[in-house]
Amino acid sequence: MPFLQNTWYMFGHAHEVTTDSFLNRTIADVDLLVYRKTDGTLAALHDLCPHRFVPLHKGKQIGDAIQCGYHGLEFGSDGQCVKHPVTGAQIPKTACVQSYPVVERDTLIWVWPGNADRADASLIPDYSFLTQPDRRNVGGYLHTLANYQLSSDNLLDLSHVQFVHSSMQASEAFERSTFRVEQEGEEITTYLTLPNGLPPPLYRTMLDPGTPLDITFEMRWNLPSCIRLRMTGTAVGKPEEQLFQTMSAHVVSPETASTSHYFYINSRTTDLDNPEADATIRNWQEQGFTQEDKPMLEAQQRYIGDRDLMSLNPAGLKTDAGAVRARRILAERIANEPQIPDRLDTRSYA
Amino acid sequence: MPFLQNTWYMFGHAHEVTTDSFLNRTIADVDLLVYRKTDGTLAALHDLCPHRFVPLHKGKQIGDAIQCGYHGLEFGSDGQCVKHPVTGAQIPKTACVQSYPVVERDTLIWVWPGNADRADASLIPDYSFLTQPDRRNVGGYLHTLANYQLSSDNLLDLSHVQFVHSSMQASEAFERSTFRVEQEGEEITTYLTLPNGLPPPLYRTMLDPGTPLDITFEMRWNLPSCIRLRMTGTAVGKPEEQLFQTMSAHVVSPETASTSHYFYINSRTTDLDNPEADATIRNWQEQGFTQEDKPMLEAQQRYIGDRDLMSLNPAGLKTDAGAVRARRILAERIANEPQIPDRLDTRSYA
Amino acid sequence: MPFLQNTWYMFGHAHEVTTDSFLNRTIADVDLLVYRKTDGTLAALHDLCPHRFVPLHKGKQIGDAIQCGYHGLEFGSDGQCVKHPVTGAQIPKTACVQSYPVVERDTLIWVWPGNADRADASLIPDYSFLTQPDRRNVGGYLHTLANYQLSSDNLLDLSHVQFVHSSMQASEAFERSTFRVEQEGEEITTYLTLPNGLPPPLYRTMLDPGTPLDITFEMRWNLPSCIRLRMTGTAVGKPEEQLFQTMSAHVVSPETASTSHYFYINSRTTDLDNPEADATIRNWQEQGFTQEDKPMLEAQQRYIGDRDLMSLNPAGLKTDAGAVRARRILAERIANEPQIPDRLDTRSYA
Repeated sequence: MPFLQNTWYMFGHAHEVTTDSFLNRTIADVDLLVYRKTDGTLAALHDLCPHRFVPLHKGKQIGDAIQCGYHGLEFGSDGQCVKHPVTGAQIPKTACVQSYPVVERDTLIWVWPGNADRADASLIPDYSFLTQPDRRNVGGYLHTLANYQLSSDNLLDLSHVQFVHSSMQASEAFERSTFRVEQEGEEITTYLTLPNGLPPPLYRTMLDPGTPLDITFEMRWNLPSCIRLRMTGTAVGKPEEQLFQTMSAHVVSPETASTSHYFYINSRTTDLDNPEADATIRNWQEQGFTQEDKPMLEAQQRYIGDRDLMSLNPAGLKTDAGAVRARRILAERIANEPQIPDRLDTRSYA
Repeated sequence: MPFLQNTWYMFGHAHEVTTDSFLNRTIADVDLLVYRKTDGTLAALHDLCPHRFVPLHKGKQIGDAIQCGYHGLEFGSDGQCVKHPVTGAQIPKTACVQSYPVVERDTLIWVWPGNADRADASLIPDYSFLTQPDRRNVGGYLHTLANYQLSSDNLLDLSHVQFVHSSMQASEAFERSTFRVEQEGEEITTYLTLPNGLPPPLYRTMLDPGTPLDITFEMRWNLPSCIRLRMTGTAVGKPEEQLFQTMSAHVVSPETASTSHYFYINSRTTDLDNPEADATIRNWQEQGFTQEDKPMLEAQQRYIGDRDLMSLNPAGLKTDAGAVRARRILAERIANEPQIPDRLDTRSYA
Repeated sequence: MPFLQNTWYMFGHAHEVTTDSFLNRTIADVDLLVYRKTDGTLAALHDLCPHRFVPLHKGKQIGDAIQCGYHGLEFGSDGQCVKHPVTGAQIPKTACVQSYPVVERDTLIWVWPGNADRADASLIPDYSFLTQPDRRNVGGYLHTLANYQLSSDNLLDLSHVQFVHSSMQASEAFERSTFRVEQEGEEITTYLTLPNGLPPPLYRTMLDPGTPLDITFEMRWNLPSCIRLRMTGTAVGKPEEQLFQTMSAHVVSPETASTSHYFYINSRTTDLDNPEADATIRNWQEQGFTQEDKPMLEAQQRYIGDRDLMSLNPAGLKTDAGAVRARRILAERIANEPQIPDRLDTRSYA
């Protein structure tokens, strides 16, 4: 299945790109170089010199231009070649690279590989909680050898938490768990509720281990693979009496058909100035995402390869409902997308 | 060439599977999970959850069932799903995995990937010497990046011992060596005799270095790639006067078309309670199989790739006769095998 | 694009092959074993036993023959099998390997994969400076994961030195640089001149840092990918007043379509008996070729893959002129080459 072109993909965290340090990543099979101009705004170029096809990230930034590291051609943020350093040499018209819309919002960097005229920043999913006052964010990045949709499947069916993340999050309330899905336009939300249980180890820094509570995981999905989790603990049978609420961003961008970028940020409202709380969160992010989820997703990918998951007739469970709808919305969007016939060839790594 | 389906492949040594520790291996392109039920008998399942296609070996054994490590589905030894842990969720009919005939015999575990109705345990080649009293067995396992038939070729032409294993086993009697082949039905036996030589280093723990002897290697081959070696030393010209006799099992199971499992067991009748003798045998098994044979087989594989050896018109030598007959018997069996049209898809790793 | 067959490819440095130590390398997809016979002359065989297809380099040299390490077949320097060690066994006619013309000249070893009747040693490019008295040579070998033509492109456009090798060789005179190309028959020469600059760090062992000079790089290219660099420093505006002259050999041989062998030798006329000068040269060869050129070439290869560079419509610069002509000459030669229908299959690694 091709990638959706006319959409915003998360490219990275804003702090990953500074005026001293550009960043190259492949997004949806497009090799990109994102850099910060001297005025602080971002530029995104196809990461490939049109002369001898070396990646521009092997060069360096000179003012607001990128100099190729091989023969010194320089390209501005619009992709036009602005300098060829040998005496008497002309700059040919073909010496230009594709530039891409790029937006920085809510501490995240987004790129649009499709038709630039349609790149409307208001289509970026809302992650404004990341910049609300009185929150503390702890995030990271994980490269995964798996298709990005396997990752969003994983996130949209949190019943896996009981098994994949059992040491930190298994709950005896899981036996009483309920699951439901809501859809509003192209936005999907799944709810998994664990009623009247004791706090699993993960929550014991926030709660006394003896406190019974109802836990609800609310997963909001937006195109193409952007998820926001709201995890709420409330007094048993009293949804209005909130014991805690955590928000987090889980954004997956395809790198290639079989690899992906996973960006995550946990955002808390308690213990704001406690570096130990940061470290604890980093530890379980590392354990949960790198040690537990990643091997599972990569094992799936090794089996599924470049086939479509649904074409393999998977046994369908009730808890798949959110993931299946999300896949359907995405597939429909891709099927209906106008072709972009004059796109430059942007990548052909095998 | 496809793999023979209606045959017993060695899956592992019996001690590799306990009630505390299941084992996954791919046999003839089928990913298998073999586990020991609470009554001590074995079960073999396709190592793949039909829900989201993660390997079942990432889960755990619960009683006589296997629980998938991703979303907690449980499967019995017949492959039927027996539990889905979310409240109110149905188990769909498609939630089942293929189960396979599995037999434990003479300390070896055998699986049958083909039609279960035809899985007759009496077809398993005889390795009963492994359980005879007054023997001491030392064995192991080696993974090889080569087609399994290259391994049986190697075993059926022991003239390679003089060159590949020269430091331990080269004999000046090799210049006088003779070679012959016998066939009885689908059983092949090759005989390599080194007459009137002095014992090579390997035998000097059993024999005085000055003792002249005749050595005979008798290699019995059975479908699909199961070999038993009887190595006999006799007084020169007096075949009835036996100086030593060693038996060993050499069983090769295909993993994929280009990789294989090599199981070996040396079984001796002398020095039974001597741990140093065990260590000596382990050392030359490591040297001979891992350091010497394996690189040779893997170099062959790199050249031959997925082509058929015989299609490359190899120069034929007299000592190939056993290997060539074995290949012919196997190819004929495969050609005559009924198709199994309703087999589940069992593997599609590239 | 296939490889040119009727041409001399550099196989290695003469000192790499001794009577005690043969050398195997793949040249233009042909696996070769080159060894030195007891009389000191060289022989080149296809590195593959025709019996069971293991490489002959896993065996050993016995007199002027090579013994296969698997079953002991021996092959003479003409490729004929001269011994099969088992009693009463015939040597089949098919037990022979292809032999190849091989020549040692000017400390370099050259092989000819094509029609042996056309292998004229006078076609080998002239590297006689390597054996002139009063010179000191420091050379080496580098394996590169890139097509060999990317390497000759690199060498024929030395404007890359200013950017790729900037720390050692960047010159402020580069802004005034001029470039031109000459062609004589199938020989290409490119000239890059940096007028009236101060010596870059690389030259400061030979020159006072304050000496202004004109530097000229003269690159001579011969089929298939053989380059000789003459680097000359002269007093500003006085080309007759030479300050230094360095010669060097840069010979690239294809291994496969996507990998190559790079052989280089720096030959100097000063400081002949100074081991420190040797070490300094080795250091910048290591830095320049391994640390700086190689990653650039390999990045190109990852993008270009098995496509032809020119089919990708690269933006053309004036300084490409030498490389483009060299590619054209080579492509023409390959297109006009007679087919060799009865060539043995020499390699089929993927």
